[in-house]
This record gives sequence, C-alpha cells and structure tokens, in this order.
Amino acid sequence: MAADRLLLTEITFHVRFAETDQMGIVHHSVYPVYFEEGRSALSRQHEMPYSKLEQMGYSLALSELNIRFLAPAHYDELITVQTWIERILSRGINFGYKVVRVADGELLVTGQTQQICVDRQGQVRRLPEAWIGPLKTKAGIE
Amino acid sequence: MAADRLLLTEITFHVRFAETDQMGIVHHSVYPVYFEEGRSALSRQHEMPYSKLEQMGYSLALSELNIRFLAPAHYDELITVQTWIERILSRGINFGYKVVRVADGELLVTGQTQQICVDRQGQVRRLPEAWIGPLKTKAGIE
Amino acid sequence: MAADRLLLTEITFHVRFAETDQMGIVHHSVYPVYFEEGRSALSRQHEMPYSKLEQMGYSLALSELNIRFLAPAHYDELITVQTWIERILSRGINFGYKVVRVADGELLVTGQTQQICVDRQGQVRRLPEAWIGPLKTKAGIE
Amino acid sequence: MAADRLLLTEITFHVRFAETDQMGIVHHSVYPVYFEEGRSALSRQHEMPYSKLEQMGYSLALSELNIRFLAPAHYDELITVQTWIERILSRGINFGYKVVRVADGELLVTGQTQQICVDRQGQVRRLPEAWIGPLKTKAGIE
Repeated sequence: MAADRLLLTEITFHVRFAETDQMGIVHHSVYPVYFEEGRSALSRQHEMPYSKLEQMGYSLALSELNIRFLAPAHYDELITVQTWIERILSRGINFGYKVVRVADGELLVTGQTQQICVDRQGQVRRLPEAWIGPLKTKAGIE
Repeated sequence: MAADRLLLTEITFHVRFAETDQMGIVHHSVYPVYFEEGRSALSRQHEMPYSKLEQMGYSLALSELNIRFLAPAHYDELITVQTWIERILSRGINFGYKVVRVADGELLVTGQTQQICVDRQGQVRRLPEAWIGPLKTKAGIE
Repeated sequence: MAADRLLLTEITFHVRFAETDQMGIVHHSVYPVYFEEGRSALSRQHEMPYSKLEQMGYSLALSELNIRFLAPAHYDELITVQTWIERILSRGINFGYKVVRVADGELLVTGQTQQICVDRQGQVRRLPEAWIGPLKTKAGIE
Repeated sequence: MAADRLLLTEITFHVRFAETDQMGIVHHSVYPVYFEEGRSALSRQHEMPYSKLEQMGYSLALSELNIRFLAPAHYDELITVQTWIERILSRGINFGYKVVRVADGELLVTGQTQQICVDRQGQVRRLPEAWIGPLKTKAGIE
C-alpha cells in the first residue's frame, strides 16, 4: 500500500489540569494517551471501532513508540491530535501523529507508533479480515 | 446563598483506553480528573476561567473530596459530567458532581469537592472579587 | 470486630515528578493511587495478596472514597502511606489512610475507602473465606 | 565522551494496580513515568539531584522519547528500571533505559530519551557547570 496519511482523522479537546506538571506544561507521558485518543477517534470515525476488535478477541499491542517534542502545551489550551495510518501490515498497523495548538497552529509534537495484533493469550496474530477488510476497501487498498 | 445546582454545566466525552484498569473499568482515580474537567467546563462556559484566576496569582486548592461509585464506566463509552456550585464561601467554593452514561442514562458516580482559595505561597485567601463577582451576579447572588 | 487500626502497614516512597501539577504540588488525583499502593503493601505484608483474590475470581471494587487534604507533597519528597483496616464486613472492607512527609512528620492527607467484593460479572459477593479467614485469625477476630 | 552505560543506576518497585489497563497489563504510557523515576534515582544516587537543578532555575525538558515494548508487565510484579547516561552534551543529556521483571529476569522494555536544558522562560541553555561538573568528574570525563 502507498496512500499518504491514510484515514487522516482529527480530534480536538482541551488540555486537562491534571495533565500538567510542575514545569507548568503538559507532562510528556500524556502524549501517548493523546495518541491513543487519536486512534480511538480514527477507528470510530472510519467504522473500525477498536472496541469491536476487542470483542473479536484481539487487541492491538504497542510494540514501538517514538515521540519528538517541539513545543509545550499548557492547561486549558485547545489542541488538535491528527492521526493517520502510515502502513497496514498483515499482523499490525503503523500510525503517525501530529499534535497542534489550535490558537496559533503551532506544531507541538510529532510521533509514530507500531501496533501488533495479539490474541487474548498475547500471541501475535494476523489482523482479522472482518475488521481490517472494510478499512482497506475504504482506503482503496486491494 | 441558596440557589440549587448553581451554574449547572455539562460536558460530554469518551472514556479513554488508558483510563481503564485490569478490571476492565475506569479506574477510580480517574473520576477526580473528570470532576476537574467538569470544573474547567463550568468556568469556561460561565466566563470565570480558572486560568484567569491563576493569572491573578491565586489557585483553588482542593481541601476535601468525596466520591460514591454506583456503577462502572467502560472504554469508549460516552459519559456526561454534570458540575455545579453547591456553595460560595468567602474563601472557597463547594462543587457537586454527577457522572452519567449517555447510552442508558445510568448514574455512575456522585461526588463533592471543597476548594479553598490560596495564593502563590499557599496561604488561604479571600476569593478575589474581580473573579468571583461576575459569577455571583450571574447567579443572582447580591 | 473492634480492633483499632487493624493490620496497620506502612510503605515509604518518593513522590514522582509526573505526579506534580502546575501548582508545583502532587495532584490530588494521585492520592487514591497512593492509597491503593498502601492496600497492596498491606495485603503483601499480611499474606492476603490482592492478586490471589483476583485469581479466585473476585475483586474489591471501590464503593466510596473520602479524602481530606491538609498540606501538599512535592516532587522528590519521601512520603509514608499508613494503611489499616477499619472494619471487615461480610461483603467488604473499610480501609483508613494517612499520608505523612518523612522529613518533618507533617500529616499531609487522611482518607477512607469502602471496598466491596464483586465477582467477574460485577455482582456483589461475600468475601471468600479462604482469603479473608487467615486475615481474621491474624487480627484476633473469631 | 565514550563511557559505556555511564552512572548505571537501578531502582526496583512493584507495579501499581492503577498502572494496568483492560488488557491486564501495564499501560504503555506508564513507561515514560518509570523512566523518569529511573532518572530521579540516578540523580539522587549520584548526587546530582534534579530538584537542585530546578532550584538553580533550570529544567531538563524532554525533546525525544523512543520505547520498544518486548513483553508486558503485570500488577504486583517487581520490576527493575536500569537507567544510565548515554551521552553528555553541552546543552543536554541522552539517557538509556531497560525495564526488567525481577522474578524471571525477562527484558520487558528498552528506551532512550533526549533531555535538553531550558531556563524558566523555556529557552535552551548550557547545562550549569555547578550541576553537571561533579557528575563529569565522577564519570572520569575531563
């Protein structure tokens, strides 16, 4: 597959107070949660709800996480998380992310994650076609 | 003052995956964060933004927190946090909360918090009139 | 039963940086996590490991949480969480807590929780005797 | 400089219940917090306490975070976080991490972070010699 920024999805929300640290900025450990929120938004919007995958007995386990921090976010700021699929593999999906401050459009954070499909015993499995198929169709991947 | 559920504000959002625990439900330590999100929504909606209070050199420090857990919330569920002011004191505010699942209207959690006004040295102070005044006017409190 | 501060257990650790907020103090939503850490310490120390209860198919679900915040904790400070059983009920346990700063002995937080025993379907159940019995024996409760 | 695993420090603690998610494992966003705990342990143990750097008016801001997840950790497991300095730069420090389960020695997670020194205005600055000097001496770096 080769599509660029496949199924790009945006979700916008306010920074929570509890997400700040004593430097007065959003603590870095919060961004993986923002990314996950982005994946949830993507799967809801494109009718591949992650909760459905879990009902089928599978999960997407994170195998790799990379984040670059360019500028801090602050309490009460509106931020947008952009999430897209970079690559669909037989046993996993790579996602890309950007976090942008709404007020001035500043790019705060970029990131990538690699998710692999595992069953309830934690074994790596092929992504179930019933879940990934509609997504491929939508994305124009045969 | 005597108003009932003063400045009642609702904010609705999805439960995040990271907020669940191995019991498959939202971990109880997340509800204080939901309550805080409710207070932020209330202060934004009623033009008493908490960030403005912080700019004035004050904070609302939590002095008491009480929560009753009636039913669990789950990943991806839409929930509504209802937040209101129960009482305005010279040096603090008492808030009340309900968390409700949108799908079936089930009441999940109720709570109360007591916030006291402190300055940057952590000393208890009267709430600045410039911040609390407009709110009292709006609420019909002289 | 009537024992005072039954199975009182102490656990001491450093405040984590991520636990602070922009007020420069430990965010209040962290204390329920400290309390839980206290319960884990109690159950490990008194051979009633919570993980064993979970293996039996039960959980202790929080039904009520009350916290009073007296003074703030800060990053890198050593704090001690004191945890004890206030009351053993047929279907639950009430715990009490104190959080104390080691350096000066200042009492930072007090709290209580009510835990009820639930099975994997979330139904309220009697505490399994195999788990609670040894604890009662140890505590001198018939 | 070229030292291997400079100032390698270990800290061992139990996985907290709140750190698990509905997959029954430690949520991936917790590992950056474990890494930070590792850095705190390193700075305490080697007399370069991070709190002292903050008192000097500086912070170490995270500019990059990379994590590989090899196997999951579970509630109540004892884990050891190994933390070391990979490189000291004029304006920052690169750290490396391993998280290992104590019971069987399994390697769970590896990671790297890049920290840059910033002042209270968020400007990038040289690491203050009063703070980094003793560390270089200890590490045998001129």
